[in-house]
Amino acid sequence: MSTFIDYSTIKFMVNQVHDLEGLTSSTYYQNHDPESLMLFLDAVAAFAEKELYPYFRAMDAVPARFSDGNIQTHEQIGKVIREGAAMGLLLTPIEEKDGGLQAPYTLHTAAHAILEAANNHVPGYLGLTLGAAELIQHFGNDSLREAFVNRMLSGEWCGTMCLTEPQAGSSLSDVLTTAYPAEDGSYRIKGQKIFISGGDHEHTSNIIHLVLARIDGAPAGTKGISLFVVPKYRNDGTDQWIRNDVSTAGDFQKLGQRGYCTTHLIFGEKEDCHGWLVGDPNRGLSHMFQMMNGARIAVGRGAASIALAAYQASLAYARERLQGRPIDTSGKKDVEMEQVPIIEHPDVRRMLYLQKALAEGSMCLVLQTAYYLDRMKMTDDPKERLKFHLLLELLTPLCKTFPSEKGIEAVNNGLQVLGGYGYCEDYILQQYYRDIRIFAIYEGTTGIQSIDLLGRKVPLQQGAVLQELMKEINHTIDACKTQELLATYAHELEIQLSKLLQTTEYLQHFAKENDYERYLADATIYMDLFGIIVVGWQWLKMALMAQNMMRQKSGNYSDAFYQSKIHTMQFYFKYEIARTDSLINILESGQELTLPGPDYF
Amino acid sequence: MSTFIDYSTIKFMVNQVHDLEGLTSSTYYQNHDPESLMLFLDAVAAFAEKELYPYFRAMDAVPARFSDGNIQTHEQIGKVIREGAAMGLLLTPIEEKDGGLQAPYTLHTAAHAILEAANNHVPGYLGLTLGAAELIQHFGNDSLREAFVNRMLSGEWCGTMCLTEPQAGSSLSDVLTTAYPAEDGSYRIKGQKIFISGGDHEHTSNIIHLVLARIDGAPAGTKGISLFVVPKYRNDGTDQWIRNDVSTAGDFQKLGQRGYCTTHLIFGEKEDCHGWLVGDPNRGLSHMFQMMNGARIAVGRGAASIALAAYQASLAYARERLQGRPIDTSGKKDVEMEQVPIIEHPDVRRMLYLQKALAEGSMCLVLQTAYYLDRMKMTDDPKERLKFHLLLELLTPLCKTFPSEKGIEAVNNGLQVLGGYGYCEDYILQQYYRDIRIFAIYEGTTGIQSIDLLGRKVPLQQGAVLQELMKEINHTIDACKTQELLATYAHELEIQLSKLLQTTEYLQHFAKENDYERYLADATIYMDLFGIIVVGWQWLKMALMAQNMMRQKSGNYSDAFYQSKIHTMQFYFKYEIARTDSLINILESGQELTLPGPDYF
Repeated sequence: MSTFIDYSTIKFMVNQVHDLEGLTSSTYYQNHDPESLMLFLDAVAAFAEKELYPYFRAMDAVPARFSDGNIQTHEQIGKVIREGAAMGLLLTPIEEKDGGLQAPYTLHTAAHAILEAANNHVPGYLGLTLGAAELIQHFGNDSLREAFVNRMLSGEWCGTMCLTEPQAGSSLSDVLTTAYPAEDGSYRIKGQKIFISGGDHEHTSNIIHLVLARIDGAPAGTKGISLFVVPKYRNDGTDQWIRNDVSTAGDFQKLGQRGYCTTHLIFGEKEDCHGWLVGDPNRGLSHMFQMMNGARIAVGRGAASIALAAYQASLAYARERLQGRPIDTSGKKDVEMEQVPIIEHPDVRRMLYLQKALAEGSMCLVLQTAYYLDRMKMTDDPKERLKFHLLLELLTPLCKTFPSEKGIEAVNNGLQVLGGYGYCEDYILQQYYRDIRIFAIYEGTTGIQSIDLLGRKVPLQQGAVLQELMKEINHTIDACKTQELLATYAHELEIQLSKLLQTTEYLQHFAKENDYERYLADATIYMDLFGIIVVGWQWLKMALMAQNMMRQKSGNYSDAFYQSKIHTMQFYFKYEIARTDSLINILESGQELTLPGPDYF
Repeated sequence: MSTFIDYSTIKFMVNQVHDLEGLTSSTYYQNHDPESLMLFLDAVAAFAEKELYPYFRAMDAVPARFSDGNIQTHEQIGKVIREGAAMGLLLTPIEEKDGGLQAPYTLHTAAHAILEAANNHVPGYLGLTLGAAELIQHFGNDSLREAFVNRMLSGEWCGTMCLTEPQAGSSLSDVLTTAYPAEDGSYRIKGQKIFISGGDHEHTSNIIHLVLARIDGAPAGTKGISLFVVPKYRNDGTDQWIRNDVSTAGDFQKLGQRGYCTTHLIFGEKEDCHGWLVGDPNRGLSHMFQMMNGARIAVGRGAASIALAAYQASLAYARERLQGRPIDTSGKKDVEMEQVPIIEHPDVRRMLYLQKALAEGSMCLVLQTAYYLDRMKMTDDPKERLKFHLLLELLTPLCKTFPSEKGIEAVNNGLQVLGGYGYCEDYILQQYYRDIRIFAIYEGTTGIQSIDLLGRKVPLQQGAVLQELMKEINHTIDACKTQELLATYAHELEIQLSKLLQTTEYLQHFAKENDYERYLADATIYMDLFGIIVVGWQWLKMALMAQNMMRQKSGNYSDAFYQSKIHTMQFYFKYEIARTDSLINILESGQELTLPGPDYF
């Protein structure tokens, strides 16, 4: 288990930092208790170790591939789908009234994180099935729910989400796939979708596609998009499941995540692709986005998981690999001395701590976001519900982006720890390096998430959303101020928050002048600034909890474990929080050099 | 040609920014003139387009591979070695008295940069052959020179450099390969070398290895290492070339640069590996390092070339790919409007300018370093020679590192420009992303280069070396101060220099207290700081030259070309120079968190 994740850290985050016990003491989660949830997590960890991790490299070596109209993927994927579903991995966030386990999303997130750390090529098949089933559950009518949901949540059938088209990558306004009303109340779907994760395989007897399309004659833009369920095999009306007119045109061969198929699907090539409307006509995008929080949290979670796994791999290498010697006080090395493990070299330690700080900070942020989702679900108070809804809206683009961008950096440093071996296929780092690169692109690129953060989320409710987040962060700051070691860092974070607000106001000045292009031109830099500060808060939370538990001599962890959290928090402040000044320099430079204009490329 | 490099920019850097004409007006380079050198460069560019670029993807798809004791590589490599050598690509830096062309190293560097931009899997075969031949030329006796040098420089035989061993990656003190004196004055070599670039192939009738080994009984550490020439086929004494006891144990399969073989060689498995001492016993490392400037400039050059090529690929995509629309003054997008090329989006422009700023800045730094090598070679004045020697010593680790580290960042942004397609094998960005990753590891990792910079180079001659560089930079600053637009940036760079000196003094304080581990603990951060500032100088030089030429209406470039240099300089200052404050924050934090100590991982 220790080969791909530090399980203690995951448990510490779920139980102590994000207060699983607090969640299970709510009415909504009353049928759960932390102990049994931890037993579930233990089972997931054992499953990941036995059924996912051993196949991680093989799935890279023999990628998903297209031939004769079908996609072949590694056979172990089918086993994971079946057994994972049987364990309840698709039921955790589903309400009991709908046959689910109604367990905290925080726990669900930790469980899937462990799977992804073990083998990130597989959990997507499960995650998209869950997401698609939830869409039908929420917005579909009884007959659609009855036909599809249970067979998906049981792992009998898989699900996908089909958004992207060749002519409209991120610009969903330009979706062209069309739905023509048929006499029986269903629709005939015609169009192409690309980059469909898990889009075709032989592991389940059906695949249920959730497809964005325009009802013939619908308005232009995103307001004319509807959501359809389009199964690979459809009920012919006599409970016979016959092939629907959905065909597979190819599988994109990728830099990484090669076991996870990425397909090109054609709907209605023979004019006979049956689809059923889910929810209201022309509200498809809005329906899709109501479920998108989960998907974006999942992307951040996947990236954080890979970064955690890569950290473990680098750390193991650095502990064992002998090379070089320390510099003595005369500035020389004693060649008669035995070589030391490279973990003794400060630059290697710096790279390892950087990995730890970014990867664990990312995972803590992901779990924080999942925790707010739990808090929103479990409250009946509309005001509190709104509060957590706003926090989620604000944190979701960040939770998607920080782990993805910083994960690339973390794994890049992890590869560097191994030197030349890091570049060789014999070692696993190069695979993590390739796998993690997609996360900054999935579900809206970093550029799009950043425009979402600054352009849509920060201005929500006249900025009240930012105030809510500040309150949460200040709660941690106040708790740290009374503790000698932590007070310095709490004070530093307080300064950072105040600078962030100033910079936000500086930028909003452009929006007030209706210069939106300029307002958003450096949104990606703003995202970076925002993320560094918010994850600084997560590190402070971890350090505070570690310090408290160490003092109280409570919990199951060693003092070294607690010290490692405090030390890494200090590292994060020294090396990462230090970077905010530069980002503010950029954002407030007063220079605009990237608006459309003369061709200076 | 425009598909893989902006050739105008290379010519502008060589001719205008780095004053090729000034070089050719020296006695040393008197047999050359800029016009004929440019014709040579044109021929190289045409060769790169015809014989290298078309094979770039095929060499990735079918990597160098080991079977039956031999390495197979793409057959085009042989053609490039033969025809490239016939063009004189291995003769440019060789002195006329030794049969070379004695052309400026600046020109040589530009020529090889064009090859590497076209296909970075091939030029290493040429470059290492040249480096090995130069070693024999400089340090070998007449009989070695006669036996090997000409046949290598003509491309008949290839050469390699064999440093790394399994138990001693970067720690050359720990080299174990042993040389036993034989009665005939030669040696019998026994040991293993790994990561040998171009270590075995079938393209030339012999491969000449330059091998670091210890003469039996030599002192421990680097002071006991000698240099040997060990050919794959050796002269049996009757001018018959028979197989020497050098065998190939394997080829490392790598993340990228897959056409470039990386071999594991075994010397003396049958106790009959003949080697000949090059230069003095126990001075091997010093000999090797006298030639290492070239090798390290070459690494920086390769990385800069890949980053330039990746920029061209991203730019071409961004100009053509239609997606999305601008945000209007109401903060919305007009969906009735046609989609625009993504180059119209500020965030995409930012990523493209970032690529341009980092890649062109890197190449300009590489050419600056080559230029100083030329200035050192062409002077007879010992004082001036020392000056350029010191500048080279200081700039070489930077010239190796900045293009490698920032190249990764540039190509990473280039891949992001393409969104999902950037992650797919159908597009070339993912290959550049994999290929460039090795450069931060080659010839001493970034960590090692950084310790070299701060620990050895900056303190040279009691800091006089840093003063020499400051003088050079101040020369540019002074020239810019009289120009309205540039004065602001010149002033900014002046402030940066002064801060750099302060930070250097702050750190040196630890060295004075003999706390070398602490002095060097953040050397990598210091390298980053140093590099950003020095490349800021290169951008100021480019902008100054562009501004002057635009005003004087001289040169062959358009105003848009000159404006692009000025604009990118401004971009570099806004987005990169802005980052120095943070690096100084880190370096002067007063906190030490990475020295060996408790295990907080």
